[in-house]
Amino acid sequence: MVLAIEWLDDPAPMIRLIDQTLLPGTERYVDVTTVDVLVESIRHLVIRGAPALGAAGALGVALAMAQAGRDKWDAQRLDREIDRIRDARPTAVNLAWGVSQVRESVPSGIGTVLGLARQLVAGDEAANRRLSRHGADWILAHVARDKIRVVTHCNSGALATSAWGTGYGIIHELNQRGRLGLVYADETRPLLQGARLTSWELLQDGIEHVVQADSAAASTILRGLVDVAIIGADRIAANGDTANKVGSVGLALACQRAKIPFVVAAPSSTVDLAVARGDDIVIEERDEDEVLCFAGLRTAPAGARGFNPAFDVTPHDLISIVVTEHGVAETATNTDPDLLATTAG
Amino acid sequence: MVLAIEWLDDPAPMIRLIDQTLLPGTERYVDVTTVDVLVESIRHLVIRGAPALGAAGALGVALAMAQAGRDKWDAQRLDREIDRIRDARPTAVNLAWGVSQVRESVPSGIGTVLGLARQLVAGDEAANRRLSRHGADWILAHVARDKIRVVTHCNSGALATSAWGTGYGIIHELNQRGRLGLVYADETRPLLQGARLTSWELLQDGIEHVVQADSAAASTILRGLVDVAIIGADRIAANGDTANKVGSVGLALACQRAKIPFVVAAPSSTVDLAVARGDDIVIEERDEDEVLCFAGLRTAPAGARGFNPAFDVTPHDLISIVVTEHGVAETATNTDPDLLATTAG
Repeated sequence: MVLAIEWLDDPAPMIRLIDQTLLPGTERYVDVTTVDVLVESIRHLVIRGAPALGAAGALGVALAMAQAGRDKWDAQRLDREIDRIRDARPTAVNLAWGVSQVRESVPSGIGTVLGLARQLVAGDEAANRRLSRHGADWILAHVARDKIRVVTHCNSGALATSAWGTGYGIIHELNQRGRLGLVYADETRPLLQGARLTSWELLQDGIEHVVQADSAAASTILRGLVDVAIIGADRIAANGDTANKVGSVGLALACQRAKIPFVVAAPSSTVDLAVARGDDIVIEERDEDEVLCFAGLRTAPAGARGFNPAFDVTPHDLISIVVTEHGVAETATNTDPDLLATTAG
Repeated sequence: MVLAIEWLDDPAPMIRLIDQTLLPGTERYVDVTTVDVLVESIRHLVIRGAPALGAAGALGVALAMAQAGRDKWDAQRLDREIDRIRDARPTAVNLAWGVSQVRESVPSGIGTVLGLARQLVAGDEAANRRLSRHGADWILAHVARDKIRVVTHCNSGALATSAWGTGYGIIHELNQRGRLGLVYADETRPLLQGARLTSWELLQDGIEHVVQADSAAASTILRGLVDVAIIGADRIAANGDTANKVGSVGLALACQRAKIPFVVAAPSSTVDLAVARGDDIVIEERDEDEVLCFAGLRTAPAGARGFNPAFDVTPHDLISIVVTEHGVAETATNTDPDLLATTAG
């Protein structure tokens, strides 16, 4: 199994990332030994996906400590560098969460921090496998069909997490139980994480699927071609409103019209009780060139401007369930604040 | 003003098309003298847009007659060649309509057919200007805002019609009345007619706009950034269900949730009373490579398959109004079969 992120001690302390901007054409690894390169890698989506960013945040603190020793930073400088990692992308709560999980242990030394970060990575995989079982159980209990046909958006697989995947993890779980039908993978413009990454993972797992334009998803759903939409999440507010890759709320609207479930899957670290509602979530706007160009080629006319929000917010009433490692919260019909509170623990 | 399609007599009878597959990077014209090249041009979207295809159908009959004279076709062969033009794309009713408007006059000679075709082209522009006034009147009567902010999908401008545009024509009209705010142009995957063609026309007309990923449209609408969605149409069923570029129904769902109007603009030739409801409209599926590749570059992994419906169907209850040259039909709240019947005349 390919790992999106991995810690190596030899020949020097480093974080190894698979460069997701080059997949599926090229499988190249980036060995990161400095905070500068880590922050750039996060900003340019060499690594992306909320849970994977949580791992990057925690391991990033250890990396910053290694660099601090090498470059003779004082405590203030180290603090500022850790802040830069934490703030590299604004919408995904997991990045800041990963940093916060280990930061207090900085005075105890890099060995302690690294140990905690590795626990966090291992815990992420375990959480993903648990939430995938919860999600599959719920779907099989609510969808009367032998082979469940799924639509998914962006990438919530192994590449987006420490391992196994969240939304993709449920797809994986359904497949292992012999209950998976055709998967529709939205290509996910502008950066095509669906066409490039999800399709690549599906091929590796031998799962039958088709790639479609994002704009086709609504009609695929309305035509009765899928039974459930399953996606990951970047930040879940206390009321269940969810920030996810831009395009998710369009899927949710179509599911509501078609009366099929819209399933959000994420580790509990994605729930941010400090944010009351979706309106309070800061939506990252990325470079307009991501929309105006493609693979370095300008597609829009010279002089045109672009609007490039990276995420959108799906109101909780459009979400059938939020699945975490702790269980299922039925937000649309029956928000269970206790469960969301538990999942945030 | 650029013309998508034009008839020339000199040095030989021909149809001149601007190659819309090369815009906005290259402004190249294709001089079509044979049915083969015309059919290929229609299939490969050198010319596209429902009303422009109506013009291509009518002028195409004249072109086939010119070739019949040159290549000594008998009447049966000419008939078959005209059928090939009519059937080059299945979803847009206007292509077949354009052919049918002149076909009966084939025995009267090419001069008669050409005269009728030219009347049809002139009539298309006049219809577009009329429907644009109707549409702008309705929007200004129903949206309480000085500068109307618009989202549009695909291209319904001069390039999609004989001249002026349908959905884009209303945008044009609002602009001329000094009542237009920012325009959000969906890029319109897979072939980017929005990023390439609509943005190009908006720049030429000096209209402030931004290009966005199709998947951003729903959240742009839900965030309150636009006041109305305006699009063209490829086929309108008797009950008001409308086939349009894939992605349109997603826009309509978001408009319904945000309680803003979803406006469909088309000449009455787009209404097909022979089709009772949207479920009866044949949806063209195009080559999967349009989704799997970009500008000749493979983006999805080798071995992945694509699903590429070119159109979707918006149910009439999600459409606020259908605007034709004859007026406004309020389909969502009050379907007016008489008006639709009139517009089909």
